Amino acid sequence: MVLKKNTKNSPKVAVLGDGSWPTALIKILSENKIDIRWWVRKELDVEYIKDKWHNPTYLSSVYFDKKYLKPSSSAKKVVSGSDYVLVAVPAAYVKGVLDQLSPDAFEGKKIITAIKGMIPEENILVSEYLMKYFNVDEKDIAIISGPCHAEEVAMGKQSYLTLGTLDQDRFEEVIDMFTGAYTKVSVLGDVVGIEYAAIMKNIYALACGVSFGLNFGDNFQAVLVSNAMQEIATFLNKVYPNANRDLSKSPYLGDLLVTTYSQFSRNRTLGTMVGRGYTVKTALIEMKMVAEGYYATKSLKAVLETNKLYLPICEAVYHVMYDNVSPLVEYQLLKAKLS
Amino acid sequence: MVLKKNTKNSPKVAVLGDGSWPTALIKILSENKIDIRWWVRKELDVEYIKDKWHNPTYLSSVYFDKKYLKPSSSAKKVVSGSDYVLVAVPAAYVKGVLDQLSPDAFEGKKIITAIKGMIPEENILVSEYLMKYFNVDEKDIAIISGPCHAEEVAMGKQSYLTLGTLDQDRFEEVIDMFTGAYTKVSVLGDVVGIEYAAIMKNIYALACGVSFGLNFGDNFQAVLVSNAMQEIATFLNKVYPNANRDLSKSPYLGDLLVTTYSQFSRNRTLGTMVGRGYTVKTALIEMKMVAEGYYATKSLKAVLETNKLYLPICEAVYHVMYDNVSPLVEYQLLKAKLS
Repeated sequence: MVLKKNTKNSPKVAVLGDGSWPTALIKILSENKIDIRWWVRKELDVEYIKDKWHNPTYLSSVYFDKKYLKPSSSAKKVVSGSDYVLVAVPAAYVKGVLDQLSPDAFEGKKIITAIKGMIPEENILVSEYLMKYFNVDEKDIAIISGPCHAEEVAMGKQSYLTLGTLDQDRFEEVIDMFTGAYTKVSVLGDVVGIEYAAIMKNIYALACGVSFGLNFGDNFQAVLVSNAMQEIATFLNKVYPNANRDLSKSPYLGDLLVTTYSQFSRNRTLGTMVGRGYTVKTALIEMKMVAEGYYATKSLKAVLETNKLYLPICEAVYHVMYDNVSPLVEYQLLKAKLS
Repeated sequence: MVLKKNTKNSPKVAVLGDGSWPTALIKILSENKIDIRWWVRKELDVEYIKDKWHNPTYLSSVYFDKKYLKPSSSAKKVVSGSDYVLVAVPAAYVKGVLDQLSPDAFEGKKIITAIKGMIPEENILVSEYLMKYFNVDEKDIAIISGPCHAEEVAMGKQSYLTLGTLDQDRFEEVIDMFTGAYTKVSVLGDVVGIEYAAIMKNIYALACGVSFGLNFGDNFQAVLVSNAMQEIATFLNKVYPNANRDLSKSPYLGDLLVTTYSQFSRNRTLGTMVGRGYTVKTALIEMKMVAEGYYATKSLKAVLETNKLYLPICEAVYHVMYDNVSPLVEYQLLKAKLS
């Protein structure tokens, strides 16, 4: 399929969110001459972007072509004129944004979620929230996932994206939208699995950060990450089994690696601070950006309890992050549970 | 089973090899008061060790208890008095060492291989070589594998070892031999699969080094390593299928990670130099230690051809290392083959 770029019939994409990940995705879309309506939270930032054409806070080195970008602080307006809605606000805030929209706001639209977290309190996935409260058909929801640091997209480094969808035909042109000089897009027939893998990797990034903060070595981290993959498999096989899912593919294993082994990762940094002796409270205050893994740890814990599943690493991270258990004490116990 | 440590009936272990990996394993064994006969290549080094009780070249910070260690430059003598033989010379030299022994030298003994390479020219595994030329029963051969940097064992950092054996009963006491304050040993019923994973990971470490040398980013490396896991799966499923093998376990995935993501890895360093523009020849001369992956690339290529298998990353590394293809040109092609 050839994408009709910036013609009368070209697809219009609403992007909700102004963090580094949506900013990176907008970079790719606008390089492909896609019409973008961009929901930016603060009116002041909207004015700034309309003047300077770059994000004042995240990936500020990236400049956009104003021909393809319409920033606005009205989520309603942004969504209403679009064919696709790319949801990319931090999970902690997504309810607040979506609830500004009417229940039929997504009628006739296709949704791409780029969120790597769960809806707090409800402890459900963003896709599940959209189906439940906005009556969206699951076939109209796709997920776009990494392994992909926004920072490297900003630098134009070779990156791979995966589109997870249960109906590839409906999202065919999205592949072209995100394919570019340094990006390659693959498609997998899995939404929930990719969503969960993207969420859980942040918990494991916290775990690796704590390990690093405690001065455990590379040998331990390699075992930690191997066991993390096994936990993801155990979880998905129980809760959302899918015989065709190959967890060594990039949006599962690759996404886990890019996060757990990276210095860029906020979650890993948060874990490191806690491992070094900061209290969780202080570490959270020191972090300027949202560490999704912190919230995911709590939401996932609830899902694990519902499903009577025990995953030692997730459990250990929960104890350290929410139960005030000393990281060293917790990791002495964890050590014996890994192999 | 309780290990009889340093009694009349305690097991005697011959260790062949004086590089950093056998030195680390000897550290663990001697902390467990195991009687060790250590084959060291140079007579001068034997004299040195008998005087100073540490390895003059590798992990020199590690001191051994002389009560448990008998160094010798005679492989024959070292092997003849032992119950177990731990083979840990670089694959490139293993033939030269083993061929000093008579064809029945291993009769009544159990062999543990710690080698992460193939027999050059013959392009077979060390276990296969032992079966073919020394008539060793496959049930008498086990493999000991990581993920485990020798350097971190020297520092006493928590590490995990895996013993691969087709007959756990025969190697039961070996678990105790290697279990210590900072080491945990697991057992898996796979020898060849673990051997091949340990070999292939060095090729992928070369691949990651080249990527790093070319200034490709973390996003690319995560995809590279995911695809590496898929290549290992493709290879093993074709050549040595085993329905019970779980490649996310530590000696497969973990060993791959500890090598591809580490600054300690010689193979990664060699790849980085080549990616940066050194010729392979110069880079090999600059490296002081053997980079097993370089030789493994050639041996594995032969095995792949025999089995009519095409693995894009292994192929790319071969082109760069042996066919003089420019790393950048090769990686531009490789980029498109990954997902």
